[in-house]
Parts: sequence; structure tokens; C-alpha cells
Amino acid sequence: MMHRMFTLCLLIVTLPALARQDDSLLIRSISDEILVNGKAYENLRVLTKQVGARLSGSAGMYKAEAWGQKTLEQAGADKVWLQACMVPHWVRGGKDEAYIVGQPRNTPLDILALGNSAGTGPKGVKALVIVINSFDELELRKEEVKGKIVFYNYKFNNKLVKTFQAYGDAGKYRGQGPSRAAKYGAVAVLVRSMSNAADNNPHTGGTNYNDSFPKIPAAAVGLHDADKLASLVSANKNTTVYLKTLAQMLPDTIGHNVIGEWKGTEFPDQIITIGGHLDSWDPAEGAHDDGAGCVQSIEVLRALKAIGYKPKRTIRIVLFANEENGLRGGTKYAQEAKEKGEQHYFALESDEGGFTPRGFGFTASEEQLAKIRQWAPLFRPYGVFELNAGGGGADIGPLNRTFKTPLAGLEPDSQRYFDIHHARSDVFEAVNKRELELGAVNMAALIYLVDKYGL
Amino acid sequence: MMHRMFTLCLLIVTLPALARQDDSLLIRSISDEILVNGKAYENLRVLTKQVGARLSGSAGMYKAEAWGQKTLEQAGADKVWLQACMVPHWVRGGKDEAYIVGQPRNTPLDILALGNSAGTGPKGVKALVIVINSFDELELRKEEVKGKIVFYNYKFNNKLVKTFQAYGDAGKYRGQGPSRAAKYGAVAVLVRSMSNAADNNPHTGGTNYNDSFPKIPAAAVGLHDADKLASLVSANKNTTVYLKTLAQMLPDTIGHNVIGEWKGTEFPDQIITIGGHLDSWDPAEGAHDDGAGCVQSIEVLRALKAIGYKPKRTIRIVLFANEENGLRGGTKYAQEAKEKGEQHYFALESDEGGFTPRGFGFTASEEQLAKIRQWAPLFRPYGVFELNAGGGGADIGPLNRTFKTPLAGLEPDSQRYFDIHHARSDVFEAVNKRELELGAVNMAALIYLVDKYGL
Repeated sequence: MMHRMFTLCLLIVTLPALARQDDSLLIRSISDEILVNGKAYENLRVLTKQVGARLSGSAGMYKAEAWGQKTLEQAGADKVWLQACMVPHWVRGGKDEAYIVGQPRNTPLDILALGNSAGTGPKGVKALVIVINSFDELELRKEEVKGKIVFYNYKFNNKLVKTFQAYGDAGKYRGQGPSRAAKYGAVAVLVRSMSNAADNNPHTGGTNYNDSFPKIPAAAVGLHDADKLASLVSANKNTTVYLKTLAQMLPDTIGHNVIGEWKGTEFPDQIITIGGHLDSWDPAEGAHDDGAGCVQSIEVLRALKAIGYKPKRTIRIVLFANEENGLRGGTKYAQEAKEKGEQHYFALESDEGGFTPRGFGFTASEEQLAKIRQWAPLFRPYGVFELNAGGGGADIGPLNRTFKTPLAGLEPDSQRYFDIHHARSDVFEAVNKRELELGAVNMAALIYLVDKYGL
Repeated sequence: MMHRMFTLCLLIVTLPALARQDDSLLIRSISDEILVNGKAYENLRVLTKQVGARLSGSAGMYKAEAWGQKTLEQAGADKVWLQACMVPHWVRGGKDEAYIVGQPRNTPLDILALGNSAGTGPKGVKALVIVINSFDELELRKEEVKGKIVFYNYKFNNKLVKTFQAYGDAGKYRGQGPSRAAKYGAVAVLVRSMSNAADNNPHTGGTNYNDSFPKIPAAAVGLHDADKLASLVSANKNTTVYLKTLAQMLPDTIGHNVIGEWKGTEFPDQIITIGGHLDSWDPAEGAHDDGAGCVQSIEVLRALKAIGYKPKRTIRIVLFANEENGLRGGTKYAQEAKEKGEQHYFALESDEGGFTPRGFGFTASEEQLAKIRQWAPLFRPYGVFELNAGGGGADIGPLNRTFKTPLAGLEPDSQRYFDIHHARSDVFEAVNKRELELGAVNMAALIYLVDKYGL
């Protein structure tokens, strides 16, 4: 026991020695470059305000690809190219509408059809509402569901300090809820938004139909309206809702990952991938999700070049296609890498918003994580105190599954993310310049350390 | 050497043992109470939207005192009272105006007169502008200043990751700038706002005249306008600015600290003070500065009562008067405590905004800080990773100087604070409910630990 403690102690005590002076100075120069001359915020302004929403298959997607190509070139990539992949092409088709049928007047509900969902058609659907608080309750009350609109009113668990845990907990109602309700004859589904926001904005996001059951329409409801609807149904079992969505899944179309490469000097075959996803939901500007991750990734390249760094390994910035409703971009990137026999050394993703950085999460071996944790003191001056086991990102996940590539995901402070996630409020104005930049500082520091010392 | 290392190791290794299960559970119950049933956000809404701005001497100040009294009673204080103190009564007097004189048209400048500043009178002041980038430059160019408007264009240092350091660095131009320019015959002063915001809002704040020199008018300029003005002066030395402010310092008036007390069970004479300041600058709602600190302090009391905690020591929530332009409230509180022979055991202040908590700063002995740092693992699940030496707050400073009371200050993430500090944008909508609440969670946890274990 004493021996183990002493070993642990040695590990802890030797950390400051490893946090070497030159690394500290180099990371300081990265930070100065980004905080003083940073381009991430202005790049984000252009992406959000001049391109805007950019869901797979939309005109915005093509504009965003052109933006990405140009911006990567300006950032100093040796080579920029588009990697084609087929992407789903879901369209909202028009304005979503819903109201609680009432006398003397109807009460409007603010809704957004779920991504990938089927529409009601122009006539809409009118039906009694049944409030279901959990899948357990659905199973208990399955006989009551037929012909009704199932309203999943599962609440975001505010006790969980890290809000992604609450999202993970509630997300199944959006993902599986429609098909599980259709199984028992529901005609449509409403889902309480996966959010802890103080406003009434509905939060969309992809749903996943099970092909064994009818594909029924499905939409997210804002929190105030969700509370109102639940309370009305509780007072009156004959509460009826009218719902109209014009959503449609069109045939797949061509989208692209946008890739910028900076050749390594010593191990050019070893590829370090840094990325975010370029697509975003249609009702907003996708500023935090995931414009932030795109411009931060590009900023890593720009800043490392600006300070005169020469990477040993090849650095690739990838703006992934179609994370939101298909993950075709991330899948294609790993698949083609395998076909070409590429070596994928490390990958880093930023897709949790452009908020003040708190940490990184790693999918890596114990030895790799131990090595990374020796760098902990180098990150603290820039706000990163957590180097957690577990993490990465949806788009780089296939690299790990294909090549066992170690992964990292930036972990910004999560308190505000679900205020704006997949909602109309995910706009440029919700992003703070310094918070966005500090995320890029820490990402660049991690890439520098992985490139220099290896894993 | 090995021995010292081993001692250090023992200290580190034994920490988790001290982070006892019951403390962890009790802090979890505080967190659950605040994150699920929290009243801080709603209290802040009422303070900002129903009371609004509340500068010392204004009608808003009196409304805020009544709000504080009522809110402390509702939170469950045994006893609530007002502690009178004389406060300065500065008024803006009307709309501040400024423009760059030009042909064919003038260019407006968005300005706010500095707190405590003298007005120009209704006719205003028109004069040539001299751009001064530092006090060193002022001394070198003192012969050129006479009859001119001195424009201090010292920039917020974006390289400093913790933004309060940049504020400390730049703040002297607002505080001392007007009198130092008046010494050389300047007729008025403009100051570049102490901010790194991406917008053009001017940021006011108190200035301190030196009675040896004329009290000349002084105003803050937004960052875009500051850049514009500097560039125009650089191109044309005859650049002239017109400035009108109607500011006046009226005679002192009566204000109040609002105090709510919860009697201790074991050491009722030992007082733990928790507070923020109730006054705020006139152009906004004082949501972050310092409505947040007030409602967080009240929330500590409410939440500890709600979970059934019985404090050993007496807990006092103090909503201090006049932090912004006089510090009369904090001064009075310590002075009266001394007169009454009170024992001030510990004090905690929140006055750095209602942003996501990062740490606490302590003014305490080495032994006290070492004891506090043993509690570090208990804070980490709630986002507090830094227990720094140095810190406290302006209003509790006099307690330390009078009684050597150990002090703590909540240290939230500082990236967004100077976007809104003393600007029109410091409104309720800039506060996130969860971030505000997590600050209160950590404050309550610290108070619980200090009360239970002593210092």
C-alpha cells in the first residue's frame, strides 16, 4: 500500500518538471496569437451571417462548403479538397404549426418538426393527447395510445451538473419515441424539448424511425408550452391538439467533407485530424453547433502557422458533412482512409459549443491518458482543468473504430449549451469572442503537445 | 528532499479521505435544492425588471432596499434590518452627448459620463482632441494638453486570460485620468472603455478627482468609436470633439445596507457575512454587477434552511450600499461592528458576475488556506477547481482590515464580464440561470464547510 502511494506520489510530484519551460512559452505564444490576432470570431460571423443554416442537402450546405474551402486556404493549408459523400436530404417543407383546440379560441404551441420526421401533409392531424412521462409509462398505458398524439413530457434532469448527462438521459424520447408510440397506434408525437432553457424555444434534432412501424409525424415543443399542455391534459382528458408539419425525406444527394491539410516534416504519413461539423439545423445559424467547432479547428492551423511552428506529423482540418442527421461525413472519412491505407495517429473534435473551455475528454489507452495527464499544468493557465477518460466526438468516432486512433473532444462549460442547442437561438450573438478563442488556444496546445511528444 | 516529497505526497494522498462522505452528500443536497427549486434567478428577474437601476441616492436605491428587505424575509432570515449610512448622490442629469465635429456632418460618439464626474453644463465643451496612450505619454506631451480634450486610448490587454487582470491594468485611466489631465490644463477627458467587448457600448464607472486640480468633465467611449476617433486624430491633428454631460454631485443622502440574520446554534456570537452590493450604475439593470451577488447570497440562506441545516455560527446576508461610487456601505458595516464589539469570523462576497463558477480567492493565513484546500475535492463536481490565495471583495475588505476576518470571493469565469460591466448590456437577459445557481451552490458549500469545521 505504501509502495503504491509512493509511486502515485512520484507521478504527481514529477509533473511540474515535465511541464517544461519551452512548452509553456510556446503555448503562451499560441495564446497571445489567438487572443490578439484571432480570426475564429470573424470567420464565425461570416459563416453564420452570410451562409447561415446549412442542413445536409440544402443550398446553405453548398454555400458552407465553398466558405470552408476558401477559409481553409486563407488559414494557410497546403492543400484543400472536397471529399464527396451521399447525404440524406430532409426538408422541413414549410412552417410547422400546432395548437391546442379550444373554445372560444385555440392556444398556439411553438413547435419544430424533428429532423428526419415525416410530415402530416397539408391537412394536418387533429387528435386527443396522451401525456407520457417515460417509456415505462408508455408500456403500462399502451392500450390508451391508439389514435392519439403521444406527448412525451420527460424532463431534463437539472440535478446533473454536466448538462450533457441530462441530454443523454432525455435524448431517447426524441430518438426512439416516435416509433415506440407508432407501435401502439399513435398518430403523431410531440416531445418536450431536451433543454433547461428559461425560454419557450422548441429544440429540434434527429429522430430515428424503426422501419417495422409506421413513420408518424413528430415535433419538439418548447418548455413553457410543454408545461401548459401537460397541465391542460391533466385537467381535461379530452384535450385535443392540431398539428401540421410539411416535412419530407427526399432522395439522398451529394455533400462533402471539406479538408485542409498541412504536411508534417518528420512523420508525414501520420495524420492528426482536427474537426467540427459543417452542417447545422435549419431554424438557426448553427453558431455554437457547430460553427464554433469549425472555426476553432481552422484557427488551430492558422495560429500554429502564424507562430512559425513546423508540425512533425501531418495535420488535417476536417469540416465534416452531415453530423446532425446521418453522420455520413465522419463515416466516409474513416472509410476512405481505410481504403487508402492511411495512418490516423490522433483526432480531436470540438462539437460541444464555443463556450469557455473546461477540459478535454479522451478515448485512449491508460498509458496514453497517463502521458496526456502529465501535461495538465500546461493547460491550467488557459482554463482547462479536466483531462477526463472518455470522450471524442461523433465525427471522429469512426476513426477510433477503424484504426483504434486515440480521440479527444473539447469539453467547454456546458451550462448554456442546451439553452440554444438545435433552437432558433443558436445564433452568432450567443457566442462570446474570448470563450471561442480560448477553446482554440487549448485545442492548439493539445495538438502541439501530441505532435511534439507523440502518444 | 525525499522526505519533503513524501510529506507533500501524504498531504495530497490523504485529501480524498478528508472529503468525507457526509459532506459530499450534504453538498449534493444543497446542489439539488438550488438547481431544482432555486429562487435566485426569479429574485434577480424581479430586482432587475421591477426595480432596475439603483445608483446610490436614486429612487431605484430605495426601491431596491425595500426589495432586499422583503426578499430576505421570504428567504427565511430570523431578523431583517436596514443599517443607515450616508451615501454620495451623483446624478447623470440627462442624456450624455458627443460628436466629432465634421464637414459636411458631425460623427456621433457613443459615450457615458463617468460616475462622480462633473458635467460640462448645458452648452457643452468643444475642443481639439489629443490622443494619449499611457500616462508616460501624458508626461512626455504635457505641454500639448492645455485647452484640449484628452482622450486616453489605453487598450484592454487581451493577452491576459483572466480579464480582471486587464481591468486592473487599464482602470487607472478612468480613476486618475481626469485629474492627471486637468493638472496640465485639459478641459475634458474621454476614456476608452475598460472592456474587450465586440460591441460599441460605452462602459462607465467611478472616477476619483484629486482635489488639487480642476474637476473637469469625463466620459467613457465605446470601443468602435474609440478606434474611429484615434484614427481620425492620427489623420488630422485638428480633429475637434463636442461633449455635453449634465452630471452633478448632489449633497450626500441616506442609504442603507440591508441585513438578514440567521442565528447560530453553538457559537451565535461568531458572525459569518455573505454579501454582494445592492447599488448599480444607472444606464442598465445591474444584473451581473451585482444583482447576481445579492441573489446568490440570499440563495445561500434559503437553500441551507430548505435542506434543514442548523448553522453553528450566525450567518448574515448583507446587501451592501454604495459599492460603485463610495464604498460607504462596506465601510459602515465594519465600523458599526467594531463599535458593537462583534466577532467577525468569516466573510464571503460575490461581485464578479453571475457566470459559471471557477474558483474562490481567499485573503487568509497560510494555515487557513491549507485547511480550505483540503476541501478541494468537494467543490470539483460543481465546477470549482481553483482555491487561490488572494481575493475577497471591496465590501468585505473593511472587515479584514478591522478584525483580520478571513475573506473569500467567488471567482466565476471572467471571459464575458467586461462585455457588460458598467454598460447598458448588463441586463437580466445576459445572466444564465444555471450559471447563477451553480455560483450559489459553491458559495453555500463553502459556508457549510467553514461553519462546520471552522478555520
